[in-house]
Amino acid sequence: MDTTYVAGAAVTRFGKFPDTALQDLAGEAVDAALADAAVRPEDVGFVAFGNATSSVISGQAMIQGQLALLDGQLAGARMVNVENACASSSSALHLAVMAVASGSTDVAVAVGAEKMSHPEKARAFDALGRAIDITDPLVVNASNRNSVFMDLYAQEARRYAAETGATTEAFAHAAATMHFHGSLNPNAQYREAHTPDAILASRMIIDPLTLLMCSPIGDGAAAIVVTRDKPGRDPVAITGAALQSGRRREGGQLITRTTAAALNQAGRKASDADVIELHDAAAPAALVILEEMGVVRQGEAWKLALDGQLRHDGRIPVNTSGGLISRGHPVGATGAAQVVELVDQLRNRAGDRQVPDAQLAIAQNAGGAVTLDDPYTAAVCTVTVLERA
Amino acid sequence: MDTTYVAGAAVTRFGKFPDTALQDLAGEAVDAALADAAVRPEDVGFVAFGNATSSVISGQAMIQGQLALLDGQLAGARMVNVENACASSSSALHLAVMAVASGSTDVAVAVGAEKMSHPEKARAFDALGRAIDITDPLVVNASNRNSVFMDLYAQEARRYAAETGATTEAFAHAAATMHFHGSLNPNAQYREAHTPDAILASRMIIDPLTLLMCSPIGDGAAAIVVTRDKPGRDPVAITGAALQSGRRREGGQLITRTTAAALNQAGRKASDADVIELHDAAAPAALVILEEMGVVRQGEAWKLALDGQLRHDGRIPVNTSGGLISRGHPVGATGAAQVVELVDQLRNRAGDRQVPDAQLAIAQNAGGAVTLDDPYTAAVCTVTVLERA
Repeated sequence: MDTTYVAGAAVTRFGKFPDTALQDLAGEAVDAALADAAVRPEDVGFVAFGNATSSVISGQAMIQGQLALLDGQLAGARMVNVENACASSSSALHLAVMAVASGSTDVAVAVGAEKMSHPEKARAFDALGRAIDITDPLVVNASNRNSVFMDLYAQEARRYAAETGATTEAFAHAAATMHFHGSLNPNAQYREAHTPDAILASRMIIDPLTLLMCSPIGDGAAAIVVTRDKPGRDPVAITGAALQSGRRREGGQLITRTTAAALNQAGRKASDADVIELHDAAAPAALVILEEMGVVRQGEAWKLALDGQLRHDGRIPVNTSGGLISRGHPVGATGAAQVVELVDQLRNRAGDRQVPDAQLAIAQNAGGAVTLDDPYTAAVCTVTVLERA
Repeated sequence: MDTTYVAGAAVTRFGKFPDTALQDLAGEAVDAALADAAVRPEDVGFVAFGNATSSVISGQAMIQGQLALLDGQLAGARMVNVENACASSSSALHLAVMAVASGSTDVAVAVGAEKMSHPEKARAFDALGRAIDITDPLVVNASNRNSVFMDLYAQEARRYAAETGATTEAFAHAAATMHFHGSLNPNAQYREAHTPDAILASRMIIDPLTLLMCSPIGDGAAAIVVTRDKPGRDPVAITGAALQSGRRREGGQLITRTTAAALNQAGRKASDADVIELHDAAAPAALVILEEMGVVRQGEAWKLALDGQLRHDGRIPVNTSGGLISRGHPVGATGAAQVVELVDQLRNRAGDRQVPDAQLAIAQNAGGAVTLDDPYTAAVCTVTVLERA
């Protein structure tokens, strides 16, 4: 597949915005990304719109993108709505890359937009439960006072601790790193740094996860402009883009095989990464994922977290945006927002959280669950490799 | 964009199957299409899964495809869920074509699967209403005893009659042609031929639409295997594949400009079509669409219907499958099912409804509504051009 480029990328502020419509969020991200890319809207030949929860939370299904962009610059374009749970907008990016690589257009836009905050908070948890087989007892019996995914993440954290000796303190240090990064990101939902002690002392959600280790409910949007031609200014190339589903394929664990596929496309190895955005819906997941991606050896990630080596100025900068737990996790927007952060890093415009001389970046985004065994299996995983070009 | 091929295509029987799960329907279509194509499941590098109403009707959202195919031959593949209202699976086909044309895989599969029948029939109408802006009064005030789209189709039929002199008898003749075709299609939901008089005498839904002029609620699935290499046996080429959204693009009415785009890709004109499948969610819409596609001049289609020229043995064979009103309209399966019918025609295996020596076929599929003015504007339209290769 031909190399494609990111010509523009933008994210809205993430947070809870009761008075802001999905249209406003999506439009703001699209307008900023198009301006960043300096492309004309009429040259955009394909739009993939990632949104995961509207059909449950607001009730609007089937044509979310066409409605959200109806009065904007991309109205009337070739457009599909993509759902792939929490990986919806990274899946949208995957399709935008495919559209450009196929020669079916020279410019494509991937949008991720989500509005999860609602006067009835339970609606968000209900929606998240739809990313698991709804006939599963975990979903059927859910109280809707927490996301059912937090049960899965807590289970994973306990297994990881048992297998590697990871301590709950290490999880708190990982969370502290993400919150520190979030404090440096003007678009993060939470902009307050917390000590590991404060994180441990925050309200217990499900042992060992405390409130400040968990991603919040929120709203936001992000957009990425993909082009065939190399942009004249600060070009970023997409050199690998993999998307796989859970269960029944060769190659082992989902995140491991998806990362290997993307790195193979790019002709790179995991240790080449200068900066990584990964799917820390809960802080301990960041450590598990780093190991599943092959970035560090099994049992190493929690020690790196304790040592502060995941900070933007550390050895393996992870989630410089603040990640899902601090930047926030409006699910359909998350995958695209990760890529926006990495583009900002590769273009040296990440401000106070800039990783020095970042050349290669990897985004990992996952969603849903097709098996609930321990370890559970996500329904979908995407991995994208980006390089300064 | 490179030419791609349909190597295999299959559809389940359409109908109301209370004891059949979405998994069963999708699996049956996928297995049959893979067998038809004689491709190995491990060679399938991309799967696009079109489904429109599950998030409302069954409650399962976000990972419909991963769950529906979890125990089947395509489990674990690169997979996205596509929603584009009633054009969901033709949009999925569009993505499958893109995946193959991009070189990102040699074999892709588009699936459309829908299970709309439910003990609470109102759920299906509720779901269909989500393909319009849910804040629109038409949706807010919907009784859920009919699909809100039937109001739109009735409005369109009245406008068409006023502009062209079309008679309600002509609408009944169009419906009679579709039901006749359905009577010849073993996979159709309704397999009974009806006279125009019987169609006029059936229960009035919304003037001028009677029951037998309207597409039913139903269940079904269809799958299409797209390849880069020309199949050895009965090859069918996809020479044009266009997908556009409603409102604010140059080129006029949505169906007109989408058809023109697909024909332009194929280097063909509308009058080259030997057989057409189009989106007759209500019988009069078939006539309006034929004119908007440019297949016949404005005001001509209803006369052709009266003359029986839309029959499989007529001058312009339309909806030889039975169309949406007789084969049925499980919305997320419809677009793929249209293409299955045309592939069968081009491969000369359409049985009693075979169009003699069909060489070129066009499928038109539309969905949703972004404006409710008269004429209303659909949210999405796809047009696919298929040729015996």
